[in-house]
Amino acid sequence: MARTSRDIRSANRLGVIQQVISAGTTSRQRIAAATGLSLGTVATLVGELTALGLLTEAGREDSGGGRPRGLVTPNPRGGLLIGVDVAETYVHVDLFDATLTRLTGTEEALRPNERRPEQVVAHIVSGVRTVMAGAGGRILGAGVSVPGQVDREGGVSVFAPNWDWHDVPLRDLLARSLALPLHLDNPLRAAVVAELWSGAARGRDDVAVINLGTGVGAGLAFGGALYRGSSNTAGEWGHTTLVLDGRLCRCGSRGCVEAYVGAPGIMQTLRDLAPTSALLHPEDQTATLGALAAGLAAGDPIAAKVNAETGRYLGVAVADLINLINPELVVLSSWVADRLGVPLLDEVRAVVTQHALRRPLTDAEIVLSTVPGNPVSLGAATLALEGFLTGGR
Amino acid sequence: MARTSRDIRSANRLGVIQQVISAGTTSRQRIAAATGLSLGTVATLVGELTALGLLTEAGREDSGGGRPRGLVTPNPRGGLLIGVDVAETYVHVDLFDATLTRLTGTEEALRPNERRPEQVVAHIVSGVRTVMAGAGGRILGAGVSVPGQVDREGGVSVFAPNWDWHDVPLRDLLARSLALPLHLDNPLRAAVVAELWSGAARGRDDVAVINLGTGVGAGLAFGGALYRGSSNTAGEWGHTTLVLDGRLCRCGSRGCVEAYVGAPGIMQTLRDLAPTSALLHPEDQTATLGALAAGLAAGDPIAAKVNAETGRYLGVAVADLINLINPELVVLSSWVADRLGVPLLDEVRAVVTQHALRRPLTDAEIVLSTVPGNPVSLGAATLALEGFLTGGR
Repeated sequence: MARTSRDIRSANRLGVIQQVISAGTTSRQRIAAATGLSLGTVATLVGELTALGLLTEAGREDSGGGRPRGLVTPNPRGGLLIGVDVAETYVHVDLFDATLTRLTGTEEALRPNERRPEQVVAHIVSGVRTVMAGAGGRILGAGVSVPGQVDREGGVSVFAPNWDWHDVPLRDLLARSLALPLHLDNPLRAAVVAELWSGAARGRDDVAVINLGTGVGAGLAFGGALYRGSSNTAGEWGHTTLVLDGRLCRCGSRGCVEAYVGAPGIMQTLRDLAPTSALLHPEDQTATLGALAAGLAAGDPIAAKVNAETGRYLGVAVADLINLINPELVVLSSWVADRLGVPLLDEVRAVVTQHALRRPLTDAEIVLSTVPGNPVSLGAATLALEGFLTGGR
Repeated sequence: MARTSRDIRSANRLGVIQQVISAGTTSRQRIAAATGLSLGTVATLVGELTALGLLTEAGREDSGGGRPRGLVTPNPRGGLLIGVDVAETYVHVDLFDATLTRLTGTEEALRPNERRPEQVVAHIVSGVRTVMAGAGGRILGAGVSVPGQVDREGGVSVFAPNWDWHDVPLRDLLARSLALPLHLDNPLRAAVVAELWSGAARGRDDVAVINLGTGVGAGLAFGGALYRGSSNTAGEWGHTTLVLDGRLCRCGSRGCVEAYVGAPGIMQTLRDLAPTSALLHPEDQTATLGALAAGLAAGDPIAAKVNAETGRYLGVAVADLINLINPELVVLSSWVADRLGVPLLDEVRAVVTQHALRRPLTDAEIVLSTVPGNPVSLGAATLALEGFLTGGR
């Protein structure tokens, strides 16, 4: 409950730079209107951010008869940020400038047998070195997203179900090779921050960003701010029950949302409907989802059936989320949502309309992610910028 | 997203009086430590609350060598608050002093055919007049909790499923007879506020208060503050899916949590297990739950079976909530939780341990409500105090 004056000051500083980065170029007056802060506070915080090199003055605009207003813009030369998306099958690393514009990136495949922490760490280190080669300027920090549950203060991967990691001190392992401020978090957190700063959730208050990949979860924001829960594990919506005593989930429970709408769950639905379908590429989620997407575009009836079934599971689960948290926006993100796209979105919207309660339904817009490129690496870099500004490591 | 300086000032004022009411008698220094506010801000807010008659000075305490510290205490003569719990079968009205201590109360039964708004309004008015008879002092406000979805700004019951009310202008109807500041909300909101100010959630941040009655829902608090969602309908956890295509729920969907753990759902479980059981009082939820509670105490095997089944449904659904929002505290509240008590709590805890993910499980304490008396009427009165202090109506 205790929010110290320092917490509030940090939050306000972040609010200001988030506004400027979202808007591109803006005035102190518009920042004050958007954040609810007084003009005096905004002026002070803009001064601090300018002194840090993150903002610059950008001329004046006519204010309709009054004094011309000074404009500020984010400073691309304010420093560099690194965002790392460690997924089940790859390590993706992007380099951004201080305006969160992507400069370059690289991706290294993780083979199925590369599951030990030191193997994954080696790929992260190699990816970071690749994007930093030839880059000039100070590095403000690197954000690293790893699947599963993360202790961000300690920099520890508490539990990564895909690799069966328990309490892996990832930040310490990385720090042996990388002399950078390192910020560890998970893809749910990264994706929601990316939408808040750079995507569909700009200016929104109560938001759920659903990550549909091999794993499934929902990043949550309340009052425009990332919600972490009491130990940074909020959002494990993939492990809420949709079908009591249903399909076995890799978490050990039965009937979880993830067991139906994660990539392996979608493959199971396809296998149940058409065990010999040519759409099915056993052991290859990417190829199967690609085949399903191509099948949908070509009017394949099996692909349409799988999409409808998946949309039904996902739609009921999204309606549950709408009834429980009454969000104004639900964003479908990550690679499965990207592959199935509008056909899946259409099914989900139809099912949600039948299942959600009328009042929360009216408020809840459901959209596909609008973040360009990889939302998780962008979000991880954004978390690194937040860490730089709030003095966390 | 925009939190104006006025919002923050109102929130801080509430934070201070909440601390004093929770603590009884305390010092400005302890309030500052608990709220994270500066001592200067606390002193200013205590001054304002004293001028409003809500706090009084209460002598000094030794500060261990330093200057003695001035103590403040809530002022019972600061005014009166009314809390109204409109439930499916009764209208319960309590009168409180400004310290939220209950002075008197009354309850009027609602007969099954009394479902029209003017009938319910007549009971509220009559109950309020009963508790106010002979009461001296200014009335700070009345909080009225009605089931279903509420538009609090407009004072409208948007949807009350039990009576099939749609857009009933309840505050306007009440204002014809009651010249009081009236604050409308629903039992989920009232129950969580009661726990935050006067119950198990004092000093806690991320909390779910589960209302188990005829209807079922979860009042949510994040960061120590009530979470309403984008249109004040957050918490409709009773209408999230536990069993896809399961029991028909009165909301029109199938397999909702409420259809299994609300009082009618528990009666259904009993009917399924033992259709001719003497525990079953058809059409009488209160009598059936009373018989089940007595049966549990007496070791009746059917009662134990119903409790175990209910605990399984409820435990899985509570585990879902824990995985999704990572709360530090889950409180079981309302009359069904009160009746089944510890035997239900024990089943729930055992099932949650099996179903929740390890990390959020570690954080989440599950307890029965500790609010004395009726938590909903107390919470409604607390919301009226909040409304008085923040200038809302």
